[in-house]
Amino acid sequence: MIKFIFVCIILCLTAIANMAFAENTEPQELLIILRDNGTITQEQYDKLKQTTEHKAQEEQSSRVDVKVISKGGVEVQTYDGNFSFKLGGRVFVDAAYYDEDKNALGDGTELRKARIDTKGIIFGDWDYQFEIDFADGDADISDAYIRYNAFFPTRITVGQFKEPFSLEELTSSKFITFMERALPNEFAPDRNIGIGIHTHGEVWTAAAGVFGEEFDDDADDEGDEGWGVTGRLTYSPVHLDTRALHLGAAASYRIPDDEKKVKFDARPESHVTDIKYVDTDKIKNMDSLIKYGLEASGVLGPFSLQGEYIYTNIGRDNGSEDVDFDGWYVYGSWFLTGESRHYKFKKGAFGRVTPMSKLGALELATRYSTIDLNDGPITGGEGKNITFGFNYYFNPYIRLMLNYIIVDNDEDADADGDVMGNDDPRIVQARLQVDF
Amino acid sequence: MIKFIFVCIILCLTAIANMAFAENTEPQELLIILRDNGTITQEQYDKLKQTTEHKAQEEQSSRVDVKVISKGGVEVQTYDGNFSFKLGGRVFVDAAYYDEDKNALGDGTELRKARIDTKGIIFGDWDYQFEIDFADGDADISDAYIRYNAFFPTRITVGQFKEPFSLEELTSSKFITFMERALPNEFAPDRNIGIGIHTHGEVWTAAAGVFGEEFDDDADDEGDEGWGVTGRLTYSPVHLDTRALHLGAAASYRIPDDEKKVKFDARPESHVTDIKYVDTDKIKNMDSLIKYGLEASGVLGPFSLQGEYIYTNIGRDNGSEDVDFDGWYVYGSWFLTGESRHYKFKKGAFGRVTPMSKLGALELATRYSTIDLNDGPITGGEGKNITFGFNYYFNPYIRLMLNYIIVDNDEDADADGDVMGNDDPRIVQARLQVDF
Amino acid sequence: MIKFIFVCIILCLTAIANMAFAENTEPQELLIILRDNGTITQEQYDKLKQTTEHKAQEEQSSRVDVKVISKGGVEVQTYDGNFSFKLGGRVFVDAAYYDEDKNALGDGTELRKARIDTKGIIFGDWDYQFEIDFADGDADISDAYIRYNAFFPTRITVGQFKEPFSLEELTSSKFITFMERALPNEFAPDRNIGIGIHTHGEVWTAAAGVFGEEFDDDADDEGDEGWGVTGRLTYSPVHLDTRALHLGAAASYRIPDDEKKVKFDARPESHVTDIKYVDTDKIKNMDSLIKYGLEASGVLGPFSLQGEYIYTNIGRDNGSEDVDFDGWYVYGSWFLTGESRHYKFKKGAFGRVTPMSKLGALELATRYSTIDLNDGPITGGEGKNITFGFNYYFNPYIRLMLNYIIVDNDEDADADGDVMGNDDPRIVQARLQVDF
Repeated sequence: MIKFIFVCIILCLTAIANMAFAENTEPQELLIILRDNGTITQEQYDKLKQTTEHKAQEEQSSRVDVKVISKGGVEVQTYDGNFSFKLGGRVFVDAAYYDEDKNALGDGTELRKARIDTKGIIFGDWDYQFEIDFADGDADISDAYIRYNAFFPTRITVGQFKEPFSLEELTSSKFITFMERALPNEFAPDRNIGIGIHTHGEVWTAAAGVFGEEFDDDADDEGDEGWGVTGRLTYSPVHLDTRALHLGAAASYRIPDDEKKVKFDARPESHVTDIKYVDTDKIKNMDSLIKYGLEASGVLGPFSLQGEYIYTNIGRDNGSEDVDFDGWYVYGSWFLTGESRHYKFKKGAFGRVTPMSKLGALELATRYSTIDLNDGPITGGEGKNITFGFNYYFNPYIRLMLNYIIVDNDEDADADGDVMGNDDPRIVQARLQVDF
Repeated sequence: MIKFIFVCIILCLTAIANMAFAENTEPQELLIILRDNGTITQEQYDKLKQTTEHKAQEEQSSRVDVKVISKGGVEVQTYDGNFSFKLGGRVFVDAAYYDEDKNALGDGTELRKARIDTKGIIFGDWDYQFEIDFADGDADISDAYIRYNAFFPTRITVGQFKEPFSLEELTSSKFITFMERALPNEFAPDRNIGIGIHTHGEVWTAAAGVFGEEFDDDADDEGDEGWGVTGRLTYSPVHLDTRALHLGAAASYRIPDDEKKVKFDARPESHVTDIKYVDTDKIKNMDSLIKYGLEASGVLGPFSLQGEYIYTNIGRDNGSEDVDFDGWYVYGSWFLTGESRHYKFKKGAFGRVTPMSKLGALELATRYSTIDLNDGPITGGEGKNITFGFNYYFNPYIRLMLNYIIVDNDEDADADGDVMGNDDPRIVQARLQVDF
Repeated sequence: MIKFIFVCIILCLTAIANMAFAENTEPQELLIILRDNGTITQEQYDKLKQTTEHKAQEEQSSRVDVKVISKGGVEVQTYDGNFSFKLGGRVFVDAAYYDEDKNALGDGTELRKARIDTKGIIFGDWDYQFEIDFADGDADISDAYIRYNAFFPTRITVGQFKEPFSLEELTSSKFITFMERALPNEFAPDRNIGIGIHTHGEVWTAAAGVFGEEFDDDADDEGDEGWGVTGRLTYSPVHLDTRALHLGAAASYRIPDDEKKVKFDARPESHVTDIKYVDTDKIKNMDSLIKYGLEASGVLGPFSLQGEYIYTNIGRDNGSEDVDFDGWYVYGSWFLTGESRHYKFKKGAFGRVTPMSKLGALELATRYSTIDLNDGPITGGEGKNITFGFNYYFNPYIRLMLNYIIVDNDEDADADGDVMGNDDPRIVQARLQVDF
């Protein structure tokens, strides 16, 4: 009997010793108790303790201290939160059919976006993003920045990133409601190299930055780059999962480079064609560029409304008169399957929609947008588009989009003389997109 | 004694409780039995149960539910099979020496392929691939598609991918037997943006698709893109590891874009040089392009034979007469070290060779190939090549290739007048390739 | 009592059986002992053994046999060391202000480097690296090679990589002391496609290689590529963490391609501008290019000195006289926070600095550099720069650099006639860099 019990105890101790280290609990404590109880001798204790420590070390060294996640791409995070890395990307496959009126637009297919994206956290306080777009047959860097977060919620960003201007611009192309952003998006400053600061409170966000030019916009002659300052304020008294209100205002002031030229032009919200009906050509003698933007958006369950107005003033010298352009859009969206558009308050933009059902989510939307590039001596044309959109979200990462666009151009919307004005085509286009 | 036994029991229970959760078995069952046996009290049971559940939750949250694999690149898979991601690539380093006859071909080195490849599975039913080639000093997207697999074995693919035509074309450049595909490969449609369907039975596969143009082939003027339909059938009554028979037939019909031009030209199965001896220049007034391809291949242990014939008809209007071109190749391969070429039945193409020995695998091969671009008014030339190939597979991912090519061109194979015809050089070229 | 003990034993055995396999120890041994002791019957033994083996197999198949590491990027390693993969990159964000003298240099911003880097180990003996730089708005391959390490410390490399020449050139741009390498770096051969061998002893390293041309330098006409041989020896009697001495000598001999031209030009150690003051234009009739380099560097705690001299001889034919150019630099660096520059002996170059404190590391440095491109008929100009550098290492991966450069050009340093000579601007430039 004693033998049996002894075997039991030894086995138990072995079991516990082993297990304890596997479990990373405190094996020593148990051994101490057992020794103090007289259940094991000091000698046995010493030996077991040694084994224990050795084992614990071995375990430690082979421990998985990094979490790996895949949702189509890959993400790794150290458990201490100090380091992470995420590799992802997006591929948008487009096809467009043009029910032509006066001009040929060119039916066809294209890869609208084809991006690889890396981002990570370094020593907790720092993070970076580096993303490249291969869609045009070459490689264009989109985001490439380093960010310092030690003063969160205040963050400082250095590198190439989007100037804080326009709700639709700041919403990723992965998540915009229609295949292309609205006509007045031509006025948004997009990405430049600079330094920015971003912060937020309970109901507001503020962002501002000083920016040079995009990495490939450096003048060929060695004049100085242009530079600008841009700021944006958003106010959102409500930002729940199914209910949100967003109001925003932004302003941007820019000094041009030595060429002192600026050009605005826009495709008819369809990218397969290269025709840009509204086109100011290069406007000379620019000595300053001022932009104001107003934004509003509301989400109420499956329904959502969004609108923006952007005003642009081109100050000119050498006797050329100033010119003003503007544009606006408004749209509504309805998820028949009950989802809500996902408002990301801290970013002041919209994000990923996750279908409620395994069958996916269905969204209907309609938009009116207009841009007016006629003022004084500049006759860039005026365009108006009505779009009907149908989005099917197979899952959070794969979306089918169908857009039907009714285009209404004025006489001056003639691609700077390259095509006939007053052209009013209808456009049918589709996209299958994945992001990972 | 009672005390000893009690200690034993407590220790055992502790051990089991701990262990059980670590093992993710059902600890509750054991506790229930012990309680029902009267070994432990209800109170003890409750406490242990609570500890158990808490532990189990902790374990769960830190569980590694993603499998990570590296064979030089990296692959992650969730254990439920719903998500995966793989990052890989290939680098081919080439050098060529030209034993010149009449024209300079340009000895030298190059990176023949330099690709980064991402692919993944999203929510089980969907997968994607996105691959970019950097070898030409810019970035060219090769594959970029989204695929739906819920109706497996039937799969639907949308994006840019290879049209289903030609055994050698559909075999990855990582796995082709000679450094370059044979001369008639010039007729294969290669990759375009479109939608395709692929399915297979026990002994056959079928693939078909409708395709626009490659992402960077969009006409500068805004004419419509060309488009085509392509289909392929393969039959393989035997497809074992060391024995396989493959028969295939494919057809492709294409309507050109508004330029109505097509051009065929081909290098002498060597890519360091830029001389394309056979060259039709741009053939005008094309109104349709029809291609037929026949394929056959057999594997018998270390021996393998493969051949293809491709016929191309260019229908023309505006009084221009139709023209016909064709080409074919046949080759044999022998693994001195006993391996077999790896036939992938479902894809109807060949795949990775895995050496049997740690010392690697050695393959000898010889090929005859010809392309005839002379017909009626078109004198693009005729080329004939005999190639002797030596492949050494250090391991499944690293291969050394040596090719000796005897080139026999006719009088018209003059690179559209840029070089002298009837040029019969000898070519020695080598490649070290890695894929990961 | 017997029942109790029996329960104990069964529980213990279960516990041990489970645990043992989880721990991958030898469960069989325990079972054998227990059977031989008569504690368990043969029947029980058989059953337990079966369970044991089954469990062990299950464990095995789901075991994490890959180690995943993130320091901002991601690295995976199989525990057997046979395979690994690392994905990283670097982003350098620059801004420059030019206190101009005679010529406009163009203030502005740029992404100086924007690279994605993959490397891995395949079947232990082989490794590869494949890195792409997107900073110029396209995609340039930097390293792309396959390396064989079975004869370590001797390694054979095939592909595109840096010729073994110049300490500063071989030190990664991530780790150089000033924002740009010194003026004479223009003479260093940089990367080409070739085959090289590298080995080292206790105090020396030797590297040599035969190289063609970089992948995108192939002549348009089909002349043969140029080729060269380059070798380097380094001697380092001391290479400790805080003390190191490095002496090096390198030579390179190159035969040009059929164009027989060579050109040397250099920016004023600032890359935002495109002005290259010193510029020989294309030197014709080159029939050989010989370069010699001498290197010395010493590290003594926080202090470090480094210098190089490079001599270049252009042998010419067709009656053109030979020309000789040279250049040199010397600099000192001091870590106020006590760190030492990190000398990597086996590579014969410098590596990553790791700050001692969480607050980061601070380095002051100053450099004098000069390049002389005037000789005989060639008047490429002579440039001299004095640079004051300030580096702040937030952590090992993020660094802020500030450089103030005093430029002193001679009359011929006129960018081959494009700008005025004798231009002596002052340059202030800053960089924030991350590598992951």
